[in-house]
Amino acid sequence: MKARADFLLLPQWVVPVESPGALADHAVAVADGAILDVLPAEAALARYAAAQTVALPGQAVIPGLVNLHGHAATSLLRGFADDRPAAAWREEPVWPAVRQHVCDAFVRDGTLLAAAEMLAGGVTACNDLYVFPHAAGEAFLQAGMRATLGLFVAEHPSPYAADADGHLAKGLALRDDLKDEALLAFAFAPHAASALSDATLARINTLAEQLCLPIHTHLHETDGEILDSLKQHGVRPLERLAKLGLLGPNFIGAHAVHLNDAEIGSLASHGCHVAHCPSADLKLARGFAPVADLLRAGVNVGLGTGSAASNNRIDLFAEMRLAALLAKGVSGDAAALPAAAALHAATLGAARALNLDDRIGSIAAGKRADLVAVDLRAPACQPVFDPVSHLVYVAGREHVTHVWVDGKLKLNEGRLVDLDTDDLVARAAYWRTKLTA
Amino acid sequence: MKARADFLLLPQWVVPVESPGALADHAVAVADGAILDVLPAEAALARYAAAQTVALPGQAVIPGLVNLHGHAATSLLRGFADDRPAAAWREEPVWPAVRQHVCDAFVRDGTLLAAAEMLAGGVTACNDLYVFPHAAGEAFLQAGMRATLGLFVAEHPSPYAADADGHLAKGLALRDDLKDEALLAFAFAPHAASALSDATLARINTLAEQLCLPIHTHLHETDGEILDSLKQHGVRPLERLAKLGLLGPNFIGAHAVHLNDAEIGSLASHGCHVAHCPSADLKLARGFAPVADLLRAGVNVGLGTGSAASNNRIDLFAEMRLAALLAKGVSGDAAALPAAAALHAATLGAARALNLDDRIGSIAAGKRADLVAVDLRAPACQPVFDPVSHLVYVAGREHVTHVWVDGKLKLNEGRLVDLDTDDLVARAAYWRTKLTA
Repeated sequence: MKARADFLLLPQWVVPVESPGALADHAVAVADGAILDVLPAEAALARYAAAQTVALPGQAVIPGLVNLHGHAATSLLRGFADDRPAAAWREEPVWPAVRQHVCDAFVRDGTLLAAAEMLAGGVTACNDLYVFPHAAGEAFLQAGMRATLGLFVAEHPSPYAADADGHLAKGLALRDDLKDEALLAFAFAPHAASALSDATLARINTLAEQLCLPIHTHLHETDGEILDSLKQHGVRPLERLAKLGLLGPNFIGAHAVHLNDAEIGSLASHGCHVAHCPSADLKLARGFAPVADLLRAGVNVGLGTGSAASNNRIDLFAEMRLAALLAKGVSGDAAALPAAAALHAATLGAARALNLDDRIGSIAAGKRADLVAVDLRAPACQPVFDPVSHLVYVAGREHVTHVWVDGKLKLNEGRLVDLDTDDLVARAAYWRTKLTA
Repeated sequence: MKARADFLLLPQWVVPVESPGALADHAVAVADGAILDVLPAEAALARYAAAQTVALPGQAVIPGLVNLHGHAATSLLRGFADDRPAAAWREEPVWPAVRQHVCDAFVRDGTLLAAAEMLAGGVTACNDLYVFPHAAGEAFLQAGMRATLGLFVAEHPSPYAADADGHLAKGLALRDDLKDEALLAFAFAPHAASALSDATLARINTLAEQLCLPIHTHLHETDGEILDSLKQHGVRPLERLAKLGLLGPNFIGAHAVHLNDAEIGSLASHGCHVAHCPSADLKLARGFAPVADLLRAGVNVGLGTGSAASNNRIDLFAEMRLAALLAKGVSGDAAALPAAAALHAATLGAARALNLDDRIGSIAAGKRADLVAVDLRAPACQPVFDPVSHLVYVAGREHVTHVWVDGKLKLNEGRLVDLDTDDLVARAAYWRTKLTA
């Protein structure tokens, strides 16, 4: 008797990431939101009685992409302050706008807009760091997208809480409220070490250990942040974090542009993870993260988009391509960060950083069915010598046709299944008007 | 009485490039393949009796993009040799494949495939450098795309001719054959100075002056090319070209990665043009072209894609975004190469380099109607604070909906009007099989 499956995907290639390369003429069987099996298409048709089969000729099925560093709600600030000197960027006009306008409704609307963009572009999970994470959580649940919500912590008042205790209390309450939601996970999210006292960082570390949560923070993004730390604490931020005990396999440093060799060694020996954000780093002229060196030292690297105010696409296909190209230019080695490594960083590497690699990040029996189909039949994608290489250097999010999260269809033939794009566009226009009033 | 127009475009914005910024609620009137007028939409409806009006709500109409450096036929080598050390890339496997397979049919099929990709991505003109330019010309005419055909010159035998005289004779005959085609123009295209004797370069210079043609060549793309020139000629290639009299307003140097300050000054004082190819430069780890310095010195810069064997997208939206981001990272100035400058380089800058700026490159009365509509209504493009900034940092070729070349519709609602994509895909598969046999 045949085994039951909810659906069977029949693409030209399965790119499991779990193992290298592409499997031609393979199928993915899914039941109850989980991947049952990856096997040759003929065998799959013989073994499984599927309620639905989805023929995907000329397409590659890949794991859903995982955005390891973002601020989803800032989609509403996309293009708000482009082409300004970096020093002027945050002070004026971005931060005054944030202080004046950011609230629950802004974060809910902005996160929903970002979720629509991410889902349509094959991003099925993200690691979010912003104020009002409860509103972000609501939006991710409405979109049916997987997210690790950052429990935002700052010492100084934010629109969201008055001090470190207030931020932590709100964060812990949020986790209590939403911890049974299968699509959500949580991380402590101090904005950056520079924004926090030793005592608060130590408390975050204790709580993160007790609750087994990642710590997600900006790390050595700018020279200024490092100089400030030297002035205030006598050490660079990474050394301060090490002394306070925060470095370990639950630590995710975002950007990590300015690193010396000892710091690369420290990240590696502590088992830390780096969220590389090449578009945002270039756009604000931060510099060039030493990605090839990090990987050579054994640091796990994922890819992130950063803020839509400084990227301005929430597009992991663009980040994969740019990361692979830039690593070559920076290292002077045309073989640096090959396509498979870029795809790994955007999937399994990011999932591992979030401690979610037992559930997502690759196509393997037992994992949740976060799956993306990419159509390589357009003239712009022809001919195909190696589908893995094409996914990074040739294809873009425009070639994504189908997306499933937890086995649920979210994008069908390029159309979002259950989000009202007219409503999203109207909300974006509402906030644009407010921001420019 | 109203004036006659063939069609009237009614977008949300016209981005003329001819003047800065975006014109809201303006129309473009077209007749007989030429732009008649750019004026407020209401005035346009009152002034013109148009056979057709094209409503483009939420869209920006921009000049057709101009690819200032490409090798269209190499679309068939897309992804053929990725992630190899740069030294190994040309020797093995790309050049043996080229020597074995490149012929008239390869160039015609590859150029047609590239033309389909370019047109679908808003590229209406290109500057092509490859062997068998006659076959490329046929393909561009079939596609209805504007092209400057490179009259390829090399000293050594190529699959196309035996020596410099043979190449030049074939190139001049090609120009005689096709010089009445309105969509085609011509340039002398010595592969690189290193491939040619002083006598041949001097002869090219004389012919280019007599025929008023541009000279399009690879320039300081690699360190090796410069070292070779120092060894053989005692000077770097640019100095050699200057001594032979080739530098002037008709000179287009492609890549121009390795330039010292004196060379930037020399390019500026001679009125030369640079085709900046950021994706290809990074992918082969060539280095970082000093684009901000070139622009500051007054050098006219256009954008190019280079070869699809080393890019691998023939996509000027990707090049605009990467050029704007990379210039910031390389110069350390987040205000370097702002969006408007990137769009200028991809349109009017490239047209000027080709000496075609009296006909194309901007939206102005009297120019040919090479026009592109970009839809900014998707959630991924919302909200819109500044459409010019969005065209570079947010939009991609996936948002191109309509393309006209010389007033003829080539892309309609995202579909190629008169190219058979199934046939293109079949031809690409045929060559893939031959190349991997």
